[in-house]
Amino acid sequence: MKTKQIRLAERPVGMPNEDNFKWTEEDLRAPDTGEVVLKSLYISVDPYMRGRMNDQKSYVEPYGLDEVISGGVIAQVHQSNSTELEEGDFVIGNLGWATYQIAHEDALRKIDPSQAPITTHLGVIGMPGITAYFGLLDIGKPEPGETVVISGAAGAVGTVVGQIAKIAGARVVGIAGSDEKLAYLKDELKFDAVVNYKTDDLFESLKQACPDGVDVYFDNVGGEVSDAVLRLINKGARIPVCGQISLYNLKKPDLGIRVQPNLLVNSAMMKGFIVSDYGAHFQDAVTDLAKWLQEGRLQYKETVVEGFEKIPEAFIGLFKGENIGKYIVKVAEPSN
Amino acid sequence: MKTKQIRLAERPVGMPNEDNFKWTEEDLRAPDTGEVVLKSLYISVDPYMRGRMNDQKSYVEPYGLDEVISGGVIAQVHQSNSTELEEGDFVIGNLGWATYQIAHEDALRKIDPSQAPITTHLGVIGMPGITAYFGLLDIGKPEPGETVVISGAAGAVGTVVGQIAKIAGARVVGIAGSDEKLAYLKDELKFDAVVNYKTDDLFESLKQACPDGVDVYFDNVGGEVSDAVLRLINKGARIPVCGQISLYNLKKPDLGIRVQPNLLVNSAMMKGFIVSDYGAHFQDAVTDLAKWLQEGRLQYKETVVEGFEKIPEAFIGLFKGENIGKYIVKVAEPSN
Repeated sequence: MKTKQIRLAERPVGMPNEDNFKWTEEDLRAPDTGEVVLKSLYISVDPYMRGRMNDQKSYVEPYGLDEVISGGVIAQVHQSNSTELEEGDFVIGNLGWATYQIAHEDALRKIDPSQAPITTHLGVIGMPGITAYFGLLDIGKPEPGETVVISGAAGAVGTVVGQIAKIAGARVVGIAGSDEKLAYLKDELKFDAVVNYKTDDLFESLKQACPDGVDVYFDNVGGEVSDAVLRLINKGARIPVCGQISLYNLKKPDLGIRVQPNLLVNSAMMKGFIVSDYGAHFQDAVTDLAKWLQEGRLQYKETVVEGFEKIPEAFIGLFKGENIGKYIVKVAEPSN
Repeated sequence: MKTKQIRLAERPVGMPNEDNFKWTEEDLRAPDTGEVVLKSLYISVDPYMRGRMNDQKSYVEPYGLDEVISGGVIAQVHQSNSTELEEGDFVIGNLGWATYQIAHEDALRKIDPSQAPITTHLGVIGMPGITAYFGLLDIGKPEPGETVVISGAAGAVGTVVGQIAKIAGARVVGIAGSDEKLAYLKDELKFDAVVNYKTDDLFESLKQACPDGVDVYFDNVGGEVSDAVLRLINKGARIPVCGQISLYNLKKPDLGIRVQPNLLVNSAMMKGFIVSDYGAHFQDAVTDLAKWLQEGRLQYKETVVEGFEKIPEAFIGLFKGENIGKYIVKVAEPSN
């Protein structure tokens, strides 16, 4: 059988574009013992993948040139040579951007479609949700009544951070880049205040939104948005650095205001992290997130585009702020 | 009786100079109940005082204009109206730059001259030593075999940080600005490697001095020295930010390389602190420091200049890197 794949044709310089990708078609070999043939259903596009497209050490190994791009994928077992998985099972794994592929049972986690919609395993109870959980609760440690500010607040991680911060009793302020996003955060997710970094006078708006200063700043974007938030931090503030999406496509080193004098004067703490730092404790997060989801305390939204050929476009769209919540490409219908 | 005082005549812009200070002479009133008349013996000049000379919120309240400048002072009781202190007792407190002054017994801590040389209460077992202790052990948390880099390594804090890091089993690399300082760190304090930030190619020298990267960076200076060290941090690095002496006299905001992308990629943690954050635990630090001092595991050096009129000059000298170890001005001989 044939499979289509998307490979890294060249490393993007600055903003990625369609020419950075190439399409291939191959015959799929038969699965060995323990392996399955998978049909991709939902492919996740995530900002961290941009870093893997550069040829430099980052927190995840770079993609090789001509390599099939990989990331979070939900797939269905199409043919099984495994004793653990059978045809029709839904699985999630770090898999290729391919319509079909072979994978070993050990690299897959079976998911139960009756527990929650399967796409939530890419979002609210998946990697972005787990990222939000540990970054906020292990590093940010919000206390009741404290002010938590989130940049990239309408994204897959930010939306979960804000809701967990509300569960923790904090006052939540979200920064995002469109009125539609702000309305979603305020009306649906019940954020206490929202700020549009594109149209508002950012510092003045933040100051109004945070009359008691900022105790936790969950940073997904970096750059000048962070400069503005950091001017408002309180003594003892905690700053989980989860992403720097505003910088991923920069061609030069990022120059700005050094944070050290500010951290010094405020005895503040800033810590970078990646979800895999918490690998040993994932189940704690998933248990809590799934419970909050079932109880209706955690809402989620997905931006879904359809078609395997749309993956690069969706990926590029991440950096244009196209998505609210988790950005997913649906590449095939599940089979019964 | 008469007392001479040094007051803040105007707020320094950039590097402080003698014109920022003014000398006054006053009659001293009689001490009320619970008060003593103190004769200053040793006056401490410390980099953090520069921040107090600006009219802006910092971690300590700014000095008022025309106010007598205050800081760490070791004094002797000249006349007592207190039941707790008697004439001849040695005390330490946050006191004025004055030859004589009145203070309440509650604002003073009596020190025992038989336990350790009295000036060590301004240095190795005093505020700088306690600062080193908590910054390194509570934030830096060095493990045996890890590499600890210290900027401002030959100062009152840096010299103690390096020695505690050695006690903790770490490999210690000191950055300082003169060959005399480097020789002291290497030959007397047994640092594993030293780097001169003024004459060496800083990044290349650091790279050679840290073949296994940097696990803890204890930052006393900030600016470009820190930029260079931070390029070498390992996954999971810890960065206590204790001081930013290279920046205290800047007239503009400090622009440089934003640290967030680096912290993110390395899951690294940076935290500012001030010794008073650990106020409840000072005695733990003093107990350990005094024990190490007695056991000969902690060496110290003082740069002492003599004469009350030399205080501003010594203070300014801090920013020229004049001192090795604790910088102290001796203003009077103890009486018997």
